[in-house]
Amino acid sequence: MPRAVALPSNADQVSQVLALAYREGVPVAGRGSGTGLSGGALAAPGGIQIAFPRMNHILEVDTENRTATIEPGVINLDLDTHVRKFGMRYAPDPSSQKACSLGGNIAENAGGPHCLAYGTTTNHVLGMEVALEDGTVVQLGGQSREVPGYDLRGVFVGSEGTFGIATKITVRLLPLPETVKTFLGIFPDIESACSGVSAVIGHGIVPAALEMIDALSIRAVQNVTDAGYPEDAGAVLLIELEGLWEEVDEVSREVESALWETGASDVRIAEEDSERERLWLGRKTAFGAFGTIAPNYYLVDGVVPRTRLTQVLRKVSEVSEKYGIIIANVFHAGDGNLHPCMLFDEREPGVKEKAMAGASELMEYCVEMGGSLSGEHGIGLEKKQFMPLVYTEQDMATMKLVRDSFAPANRLNPGKIFPDGEEFEPAVQATPRQADPGMYV
Amino acid sequence: MPRAVALPSNADQVSQVLALAYREGVPVAGRGSGTGLSGGALAAPGGIQIAFPRMNHILEVDTENRTATIEPGVINLDLDTHVRKFGMRYAPDPSSQKACSLGGNIAENAGGPHCLAYGTTTNHVLGMEVALEDGTVVQLGGQSREVPGYDLRGVFVGSEGTFGIATKITVRLLPLPETVKTFLGIFPDIESACSGVSAVIGHGIVPAALEMIDALSIRAVQNVTDAGYPEDAGAVLLIELEGLWEEVDEVSREVESALWETGASDVRIAEEDSERERLWLGRKTAFGAFGTIAPNYYLVDGVVPRTRLTQVLRKVSEVSEKYGIIIANVFHAGDGNLHPCMLFDEREPGVKEKAMAGASELMEYCVEMGGSLSGEHGIGLEKKQFMPLVYTEQDMATMKLVRDSFAPANRLNPGKIFPDGEEFEPAVQATPRQADPGMYV
Repeated sequence: MPRAVALPSNADQVSQVLALAYREGVPVAGRGSGTGLSGGALAAPGGIQIAFPRMNHILEVDTENRTATIEPGVINLDLDTHVRKFGMRYAPDPSSQKACSLGGNIAENAGGPHCLAYGTTTNHVLGMEVALEDGTVVQLGGQSREVPGYDLRGVFVGSEGTFGIATKITVRLLPLPETVKTFLGIFPDIESACSGVSAVIGHGIVPAALEMIDALSIRAVQNVTDAGYPEDAGAVLLIELEGLWEEVDEVSREVESALWETGASDVRIAEEDSERERLWLGRKTAFGAFGTIAPNYYLVDGVVPRTRLTQVLRKVSEVSEKYGIIIANVFHAGDGNLHPCMLFDEREPGVKEKAMAGASELMEYCVEMGGSLSGEHGIGLEKKQFMPLVYTEQDMATMKLVRDSFAPANRLNPGKIFPDGEEFEPAVQATPRQADPGMYV
Repeated sequence: MPRAVALPSNADQVSQVLALAYREGVPVAGRGSGTGLSGGALAAPGGIQIAFPRMNHILEVDTENRTATIEPGVINLDLDTHVRKFGMRYAPDPSSQKACSLGGNIAENAGGPHCLAYGTTTNHVLGMEVALEDGTVVQLGGQSREVPGYDLRGVFVGSEGTFGIATKITVRLLPLPETVKTFLGIFPDIESACSGVSAVIGHGIVPAALEMIDALSIRAVQNVTDAGYPEDAGAVLLIELEGLWEEVDEVSREVESALWETGASDVRIAEEDSERERLWLGRKTAFGAFGTIAPNYYLVDGVVPRTRLTQVLRKVSEVSEKYGIIIANVFHAGDGNLHPCMLFDEREPGVKEKAMAGASELMEYCVEMGGSLSGEHGIGLEKKQFMPLVYTEQDMATMKLVRDSFAPANRLNPGKIFPDGEEFEPAVQATPRQADPGMYV
């Protein structure tokens, strides 16, 4: 619970709040829509929260140079919907895109299904006006990808609110593709679906999206909505191709044969918007649908080299058995970004601790397999204890020095990212969240 | 002239040289192949130079995950040639790729004709082992695009040797395209060629490369080699498409009609490797060929929104007339990256000063048009006086604080990037270079 909440209407007010807090030695955390999963938007004890419902304007769309300039409170999907009127789109599409804000997307360097082909938020932010810890306002980056001097824009994106608060953002837009085609590859088991992923990528194809949904998740989804996923499947792959007609046509044939060759029992193709939307609705409501299986869940976000997917999913099964916890898998298979989701009832004594222990084991295994701690959800409070798995003391010391150059007093979103007890111990631990159809991953 | 040159064989030796220099208070500059155009590889007076001819090994190619790990002295083209054996390529292709090193590419965030479609060096470097000012070795980034914590990798790329020295580099590789097709669009004048650029890009096409070569440059090239550019043309566009057969086929038709519609007098298509290589040879030797027109040249590197190309080229003509200096134009038209090249004889009294004054006027105009100081050559010594055109004192102060977090004593490549006389005044001013067939832009 923050000590106070500020709802600024412009950069000047953000700057004033920061300057005041800086003078008084009070920590500050920005908050977009609070959809983040690693605790990035939680205020430090006794801290001030700055939220952005009043700074939600799309300031400019430059159709010729394909850029948009916006305030940080603009909702991701609102921007995309708006620019589609001009034949363009904003590519990064977190599953929370209906609710999450662009400011939050920048803090967490948010990904999404279509980031497989187009890259995460950092590849789409050209420049920002940023208010620093003491209220100073600076410009990072610019209106194009080529800017002189250090790429402070790049290091700011993904700094989880510890460097400053973006008050104005210029993003690049992409032209809409000529055509879109969505495939549902139906597999008897998750191993063959993994081979399907390898076969598609191994052909040198980079689909716009390549998502995996396992048997348990299929059942959960179909409990809630008919997404057209067959309930007896062991796993399905949701694959989207985009581009020119001829290109999509040719690649379609390659995708289809890759799926058949790796043991798909069926391959369905959606070309109509309504069919496509139905397939995606299943993927996007999966995490909410887990409420039909268990009242609580804890989601693990890890990344491994694509070639290790089968091996890591085997480990997920082992962990599930060892701790007696059901684990569902819905994830960005194309870039090896796993989301094992532990399902349980927190009223059962000791189960939460078991889930946490299983999650730790999975994190460690991802790193062992040459992977990483987080695909797109950030480190925040949730995973800071895992940072030493990936970085040495020296590596983290360098990161902190860079943070100190933006926020020397470390009062912007303090206590996040790094494992040591700097400034204060967080009051909030990573905890399971109530299953909720409004939750997105 | 540096005080001493170190030729280390491994990271440990780099670290030892840095630690020694740090203790003794001596500045250090890394040097790859010295092909940079903004003075980045020049040692500070009394400083040590570290060069990398002995650290030129390709350590690993991971075909499954499409990455390569290399030492900083590896030559750009050597890496590309090597990985092509495995059906992959390293995309960033500076015109100096035959000579320039990957370490230098990272320092300058090097671009190249094919960066239009694939992005500059920063989009292709996944991780680095880096020796800092005091010899400490840290890891930035990792083996994949998703790494936890701050993106120090991103801010290191393009830091012009002022943050540290990369001792080991992991880059991502791309699969080779199925087919490549190169177009030569021949135009009666540069204005219609500019319309051709707008028409191609306006169709939503992102070619792999889109280069402009003006009449003067055509004459210079044809003096030296027969690249097949018609000598009576006002300008030519060199456009390359890559991808699947069907895709390239469809886009080809669109490119062709865009060129005809905007007044091309002819459109030639190279599909054979030998024809393509001949067309590219012209582009890549243009700057060396200027030696047949004048003994000296000074190249200006600026970026403007593509929609302002015609306007800025008009300004280039005005500057040419005002100062009585011939200016040739060969540049990356697709991303609005201009390279007006001033041709003169430095023995003529006052001409160098005129060239510099003209260059300044062009830099200022680029910024006025919503553009920037440098597309791909860095700031170095050459352009540091222009930084205040783009950034406020506060913006630059923030950059310096970030630099200080990597290099608190500011002894790595000091005196570059920022206009104030920190530490020492550079002994070397940006000067015209002898026309030389070995020069690349």
